[in-house]
Amino acid sequence: MPTISQRGQLMPPSPIRKLVPFAEAAKKRGTKVFHLNIGQPDIATPQSMMDAVRNIDFRVLEYSHSAGNESYRQKLTEYYKTVGINITASEIIVTTGGSEAILFGMLACLDPGDEVIIPEPFYANYNGFAIAAGVKVVPVTSYIDTGFALPPISELEKKITPRTKAIIICNPNNPTGYLYTAEEMEQLRDLLLRYPLFLFSDEAYREFCYEGNQISAMHLKGVEDQVILMDTISKRYSACGARLGALVTKNKAVLDAAMKLAQARLSPPSFAQIAAEAAIDLPADYFEETRKEYCNRRDLLVARLNAMPGVYCPCPGGAFYAMARLPIDDSDLFCQWLLESFSHQGATVMLAPATGFYGTPGLGKQEVRLAYVLNSDSINQAMDCLEKALEVYPGRK
Amino acid sequence: MPTISQRGQLMPPSPIRKLVPFAEAAKKRGTKVFHLNIGQPDIATPQSMMDAVRNIDFRVLEYSHSAGNESYRQKLTEYYKTVGINITASEIIVTTGGSEAILFGMLACLDPGDEVIIPEPFYANYNGFAIAAGVKVVPVTSYIDTGFALPPISELEKKITPRTKAIIICNPNNPTGYLYTAEEMEQLRDLLLRYPLFLFSDEAYREFCYEGNQISAMHLKGVEDQVILMDTISKRYSACGARLGALVTKNKAVLDAAMKLAQARLSPPSFAQIAAEAAIDLPADYFEETRKEYCNRRDLLVARLNAMPGVYCPCPGGAFYAMARLPIDDSDLFCQWLLESFSHQGATVMLAPATGFYGTPGLGKQEVRLAYVLNSDSINQAMDCLEKALEVYPGRK
Repeated sequence: MPTISQRGQLMPPSPIRKLVPFAEAAKKRGTKVFHLNIGQPDIATPQSMMDAVRNIDFRVLEYSHSAGNESYRQKLTEYYKTVGINITASEIIVTTGGSEAILFGMLACLDPGDEVIIPEPFYANYNGFAIAAGVKVVPVTSYIDTGFALPPISELEKKITPRTKAIIICNPNNPTGYLYTAEEMEQLRDLLLRYPLFLFSDEAYREFCYEGNQISAMHLKGVEDQVILMDTISKRYSACGARLGALVTKNKAVLDAAMKLAQARLSPPSFAQIAAEAAIDLPADYFEETRKEYCNRRDLLVARLNAMPGVYCPCPGGAFYAMARLPIDDSDLFCQWLLESFSHQGATVMLAPATGFYGTPGLGKQEVRLAYVLNSDSINQAMDCLEKALEVYPGRK
Repeated sequence: MPTISQRGQLMPPSPIRKLVPFAEAAKKRGTKVFHLNIGQPDIATPQSMMDAVRNIDFRVLEYSHSAGNESYRQKLTEYYKTVGINITASEIIVTTGGSEAILFGMLACLDPGDEVIIPEPFYANYNGFAIAAGVKVVPVTSYIDTGFALPPISELEKKITPRTKAIIICNPNNPTGYLYTAEEMEQLRDLLLRYPLFLFSDEAYREFCYEGNQISAMHLKGVEDQVILMDTISKRYSACGARLGALVTKNKAVLDAAMKLAQARLSPPSFAQIAAEAAIDLPADYFEETRKEYCNRRDLLVARLNAMPGVYCPCPGGAFYAMARLPIDDSDLFCQWLLESFSHQGATVMLAPATGFYGTPGLGKQEVRLAYVLNSDSINQAMDCLEKALEVYPGRK
């Protein structure tokens, strides 16, 4: 019998999805589960996107251009202009979700054994794509006590070796919600000026900033050829199931390599491109309402968390995640216990253990990530559950 | 400035798409281009698939299950039963096109430096995915004079080394249209019984067989755990733009590894799953008409080709491709010349040079692939062009 590959064995199971069977069992027992564990927003997908798909009238569902429909890429340049990013349609490769943009970026820029530096905690799937690509993830720890600010640039610099090819940031950050400051972005720029590194910038949550605007890596001067934007419409328009993203860069060699990867998989999904193209024409104030809603939820969630004895949650500046430190022994055990052994008024809450977001073993054991993707009522009920749970959890510290 | 990866440099540009700029220039000059170069069928996508998408009425376009919607996978087991493949929903991972099934299979089963044996000429993108995965492609040549039958099994066996992990077949074949015989499938089975190898079976064209039925690799007895089916709805329902496929296997370890890869990219596209689920309820005779249409086109194309002096085209048993040997110096030059320097009654024809389908350098220089994805009128006009072109081509041999 042939054996599977080493990388197949090394691939980490999703730290979020591994708890799913326990949630399903809880639901079967009749327990309501508040899902704060996953970044699946409850915000309605814009009507105009859905209508564009409802109104399709072509005869054959054909392959699109490997880089995405020309008309969609042209419209995307308009969208990017509104956020201060000046690019042409030929500098965009439309991808199947932000996921594929991450994969293409890694494959195009890094060889097996090359290293990528990532501030931790980080989006867990960077790890999966790195293993698929044979790339070594080198984490640099950021801390809850500084609100998960960018680690001192000297800490990043210390990790640079001859095999280092790239840095990944996610801004605003998943899982911490941290929004990088102008000063931090300048420090990253200066580092890029001193070292021949790529900066992969995951800006999935660009629109969701609550105090001031995001500074895109694409805004940084003098390092334009080193920046690769990894983007997605999943969160921007609450359209996770579309599976549509983009790799954007001014670096011609990276575009050429990514284009060959794009040709190998033929094209991004066609229905999703139709929906996404319609989204560009949404009124300018579309994000206002969503932002206000998320901001209210954030304020509620953070206030509720910090009111619980022994709990600390820094106020995140963006995205729709918060990381909280809990008075517990082990976040994996605690999150499983919440689903397996706890309920309050017939309900419990599902959280993401932070251990899955750290590259350094042993970190994150007292932390959980909470996605505020439910309405305020649900958040209040979920927080009631968490408060009660912490009172009775046998592993409380 | 950082440099891109070696694999990014090594990735082959699409042998089909590299001629696109010449086709575009021809069209700008007012020349009509008959596209026999790409497997984009002109058959209408079934109305019921389109209607399922037109009738969507959910509020949020959510992620689906990473393995694909449970309801779709259940329906897929019904479809597979109709073609004699007995599997459960948990043995299916729905992928983003057949492309992703190929990628997942390679990543899950092979490590960098491992080898995969593929009868050539082969689907060019196997090469791209192999380079992305760091896997070495070992070609075994099949020949036009035997209609591209499976090479003698002893030739495949000679190529097996300690690094060989898999064999890839495409049946019926792209680019040759060859349909493997029962005897050939048994020979492959016997080889699998003697060596611990995976058999990746790409069966994208299962429904399009013109003399007798396809024997799926999933039908082979005693090697069930070694077979990985790579499937897609692109050609089956003329729905290339959906980007929906499946990896199907009874091997639990492969399923587990592929599932972790599937989780890393979150989910396959949602709209496409809705369309594909509706397709399973198409009437049993749905494929009859399409098959008849393709069969007529095949007969016409092959007859026209073999009537041209110096041209030889074996009659393909399946898919919608034919490979022809032409009296020319170099198929790349010829195909470019057709677009750049030739027209007949205001039209020309775009073909795929066979060189891109061979792993062995130098092979395929007298061969081209023709996709019979246009109606009979267009095929006749395209053949008129080709006939005239061969009369005047300066590189005629």
